[in-house]
Amino acid sequence: MTLPRIGITLGDPGGIGPEIVLKAFSGGYALPAADYVLFGSSRVLEDDEKILGLRLPLGFLKPNKIATAGTLSLREIPGLTGKLTKGAAVPENGLASFKFFEEAVAEARKGMLRGVVTAPISKHSWTLAGVKWRGHTDYLGQFYPEVIMAFWSAKLKVALLSHHVSLRDALEKITRQNLHSFFLRLGQSLERIRPSGFEFLVSGLNPHAGEQGLLGSEEIEEIIPAVEEARKSGLRISGPYPPDVVFRLALGQEDKIAIALYHDQGLIAFKLEAFDQGVNLSLGLPFVRTSPDHGTAFAIAGKNAASAESLVEAIKLAVELSSHLP
Amino acid sequence: MTLPRIGITLGDPGGIGPEIVLKAFSGGYALPAADYVLFGSSRVLEDDEKILGLRLPLGFLKPNKIATAGTLSLREIPGLTGKLTKGAAVPENGLASFKFFEEAVAEARKGMLRGVVTAPISKHSWTLAGVKWRGHTDYLGQFYPEVIMAFWSAKLKVALLSHHVSLRDALEKITRQNLHSFFLRLGQSLERIRPSGFEFLVSGLNPHAGEQGLLGSEEIEEIIPAVEEARKSGLRISGPYPPDVVFRLALGQEDKIAIALYHDQGLIAFKLEAFDQGVNLSLGLPFVRTSPDHGTAFAIAGKNAASAESLVEAIKLAVELSSHLP
Repeated sequence: MTLPRIGITLGDPGGIGPEIVLKAFSGGYALPAADYVLFGSSRVLEDDEKILGLRLPLGFLKPNKIATAGTLSLREIPGLTGKLTKGAAVPENGLASFKFFEEAVAEARKGMLRGVVTAPISKHSWTLAGVKWRGHTDYLGQFYPEVIMAFWSAKLKVALLSHHVSLRDALEKITRQNLHSFFLRLGQSLERIRPSGFEFLVSGLNPHAGEQGLLGSEEIEEIIPAVEEARKSGLRISGPYPPDVVFRLALGQEDKIAIALYHDQGLIAFKLEAFDQGVNLSLGLPFVRTSPDHGTAFAIAGKNAASAESLVEAIKLAVELSSHLP
Repeated sequence: MTLPRIGITLGDPGGIGPEIVLKAFSGGYALPAADYVLFGSSRVLEDDEKILGLRLPLGFLKPNKIATAGTLSLREIPGLTGKLTKGAAVPENGLASFKFFEEAVAEARKGMLRGVVTAPISKHSWTLAGVKWRGHTDYLGQFYPEVIMAFWSAKLKVALLSHHVSLRDALEKITRQNLHSFFLRLGQSLERIRPSGFEFLVSGLNPHAGEQGLLGSEEIEEIIPAVEEARKSGLRISGPYPPDVVFRLALGQEDKIAIALYHDQGLIAFKLEAFDQGVNLSLGLPFVRTSPDHGTAFAIAGKNAASAESLVEAIKLAVELSSHLP
């Protein structure tokens, strides 16, 4: 059996990304066997190695500790010179973290990687660097306009109809047509992952899912018709449920995915229930892409205080799901 | 010391309200000493007593079990005749539950009750009965336009800027002026409850609290100025925080209240963290009003499957807070 090759990007050099990558690969976690390729800069890694007192075993994996087989190597992305800034958004770090990601995605698009795991970037740093995309998923959207952002843990699974847009803009995307197309794409993207399929529990938009139209009309005009249509297309799907009920219904149910209609509807629930174990997952791509569900955490960067738990979960999920790729 | 007189409304006769009231007062819970007055119908209670095999000690309290002192009596509200409908919204039950509540509020407004605890009504039943209000808080709003809906538990406290309106309408209420006035009223209504005060943690509206304006402008234009202004007015207040962060910050913090900008922002978090222990609390009234944080649960009505936990917490909080009234 050939091991899958998985790219890992270091994220924003000023955040906790390099630290958690170092921690994940330094022997304390049982990672699955794979050929891991770090996309980053040795300068950044060396700085964090000093802070942490760690030394990454580049070129090989510690046998019996990280995996029984596999390799770990670094793809050096040039560009970072001068003193590194930690704990704040700066253009140099924005540009560097963008290039790490850009290169990893290019490799994945050529078929050279089965999965890409991304440590957190700062959208603010990207903006300062003149990068026009609002994050990883937004960048992927130019190649794969139908990419879906999902959050995955043993306790709760959530897929988002929209993600990094204002709440006002998110409301405009809640149409019967968008919803139906989203349900179908989500179903297709998950087919290979779980042959017996998932059940989708769709959230409403308004308090009490609109209470028969008393508290908003989107449920009656857009959401209910889209759910009905998707059911006729063969999906296991139900709802809309009241937004303050639907996530509780999906809790602990391995085969259920809650569908959130905007970013915070899903993320408030997910971060309360699955913080540190949660993984951000992009669906609808020809490769797997996962990331931890937290940000750069500038406030604790460079202080050896960050937990690698969520990144380790992201790596495990990337390796597991990559085995379901065609 | 005079015991506080606390009104308890039975809620929708077709829901779990009568059942949980019976359970709360039938001896299994240590309720605080008070003069409790049920606002309801003996017909409804007798029906549920048969289902549950319980007999409510009307006219007295079981000594040493429910309270060391106090009374329990029924204020009979006439009107319900014919066969009772369980488990569905019907106009007869809507009208009855409205009258129970209307009468209790009238008594409280006359100063005859220090607190009113309301079992769940069905807004749908109210509408079928031609009642124009959208719920308890909406009805109270005609007498007390500045009533505030809050959710209270040892684990999490949340106050809502708006409640039973569509999400689109809720967005229109997020103005600097509304926010500032809301913060001040909330501060005033809580002064007597905790002399050392509470800290308010204000949620943003957009993903990541707008990320410096990239994902929405309400934080910069409305919310930040209102928080600054309220701080200058002497309140302990901070934010806006990302909506998927603010509730985690308030978790387990006795003196912190998370401010949600719309119904489900607060309720998704509250129901995940404090289901069954949560209490709905109306602030800004001359009397205390609490209720359990769940609905009529028509699906399990009449099946002896409902938990009285949240109602019991609501009764305890009403008695406790009524001691802080002037």
